[in-house]
Amino acid sequence: MTDPAIHKYLFKISYDGTAYGGWQIQQNAPSIQATIEHVLQKILQEKISLTGSGRTDAGVHALSQTAHFTTSQILLESKILYSLNQLLPPDIRILEMKPVPIDFHARYSASSKVYQYQLHLHPVRSPFLYPFAYHPPYKIDLDQLKRCLPYFIGKRDFTSFAHEAHTGSCAKNPIRTLMRLELIEIDEGIALLFEGDGFLYKMVRNITGTLLDICAGKIKEEEIPLIFDAKDRKKAGKTAPPHGLFLVQVNYNNNEKLSNEDQ
Amino acid sequence: MTDPAIHKYLFKISYDGTAYGGWQIQQNAPSIQATIEHVLQKILQEKISLTGSGRTDAGVHALSQTAHFTTSQILLESKILYSLNQLLPPDIRILEMKPVPIDFHARYSASSKVYQYQLHLHPVRSPFLYPFAYHPPYKIDLDQLKRCLPYFIGKRDFTSFAHEAHTGSCAKNPIRTLMRLELIEIDEGIALLFEGDGFLYKMVRNITGTLLDICAGKIKEEEIPLIFDAKDRKKAGKTAPPHGLFLVQVNYNNNEKLSNEDQ
Repeated sequence: MTDPAIHKYLFKISYDGTAYGGWQIQQNAPSIQATIEHVLQKILQEKISLTGSGRTDAGVHALSQTAHFTTSQILLESKILYSLNQLLPPDIRILEMKPVPIDFHARYSASSKVYQYQLHLHPVRSPFLYPFAYHPPYKIDLDQLKRCLPYFIGKRDFTSFAHEAHTGSCAKNPIRTLMRLELIEIDEGIALLFEGDGFLYKMVRNITGTLLDICAGKIKEEEIPLIFDAKDRKKAGKTAPPHGLFLVQVNYNNNEKLSNEDQ
Repeated sequence: MTDPAIHKYLFKISYDGTAYGGWQIQQNAPSIQATIEHVLQKILQEKISLTGSGRTDAGVHALSQTAHFTTSQILLESKILYSLNQLLPPDIRILEMKPVPIDFHARYSASSKVYQYQLHLHPVRSPFLYPFAYHPPYKIDLDQLKRCLPYFIGKRDFTSFAHEAHTGSCAKNPIRTLMRLELIEIDEGIALLFEGDGFLYKMVRNITGTLLDICAGKIKEEEIPLIFDAKDRKKAGKTAPPHGLFLVQVNYNNNEKLSNEDQ
């Protein structure tokens, strides 16, 4: 007897992370991953394990997170999306589902990821935007902010911007390439747009927090190269709060590969 | 002995109405009015009564609601705004405070009001926009919608679009003038922008619901004049849900008058 055929599918998922303890399954808070797995298992009547492109922390949002799963069934996108979005809570939506080759991996096949950190700069904090943007209690000098961005772009050792507990053991290789770090305008504020081949744990929030500390006058912009050289998290600025952060997009090089059904 | 001097001030207020039973104080749910009065009384150590430009229903939002109050104290805008916004919940913000003449009235001095009804038209309901826009379960023909708008513009008897319980007794004069009814583009959808000299209870939601019923094929657009003529709420369409509705702005003709302090 042979094994039943295995089919692999990729989800694009959008969520408001406010009410969740993050992407990853954990004991003490609801997670995005567990919520989707639970509903998907109900629909497919089969044990399902979702593998995300990476974790997002408690309170972090996603415009388009990706995750893959395998199943013994051949699935029809329109039918599964309809059922899932009917049963999921309204703060989690599955935007797309497509078949992927069996060797595809949501995390390891990714060529780059895009994150956005939103800053609300109106003098009065918005009653609509406060869960989705950080409202700094001091004035942001946009010219100064722009001057700081090039320091972070390129292939670098980001140890000083990695989460302390992960420096050393977990992040064995702290070298990452940041292809883009841009300031874009959003409604009543700005966003910092990060594109990288990968991100260390809390790297986006630690870079953003350091930039905010520069704007607040706590760190000088000339110190940025020294912070990199120190390879010490304590030399960089604070960690920006999670609610301003969005995972915007996960890119895969072989887009043509994704549209070939592996069946 | 003479009375202490009376000073009158006007607030511009923005709120996410999701968690409230509406603007007006009521027994069984928190209200925007009561929440602000409570905090203001704490700050001023004086009994304060807020008079809004009008009610907004449970779940309805405001970009800029107005309300006046009188006090025996001369208030400094920056100080009061700072204290209020520190103590208010994050889904209510006071945007501005200014002195107004003693005969000014937030409701009766208003020359027009602007409301906006937001429709989210992306096939998948957004996990970020669902508390702030209605997501119709059928396709909206924008050309058809635009064709229907002129029927509602002008000075008319809006009895058929007033709340049933209020037809007759409460709304003694059902004549209102709608100066503007436009379709504008918003993120992933459209909004209907209403400007009128006044609005009957639930009028914006009843007009929107009727337009939606036309889009859904339940009412023919040629029937709109007959619905007006019938002066019967039952002839019009359903009431659109509250969460898509925003009070955008309250206009006062004598803007110069507002900047003259009445002291």
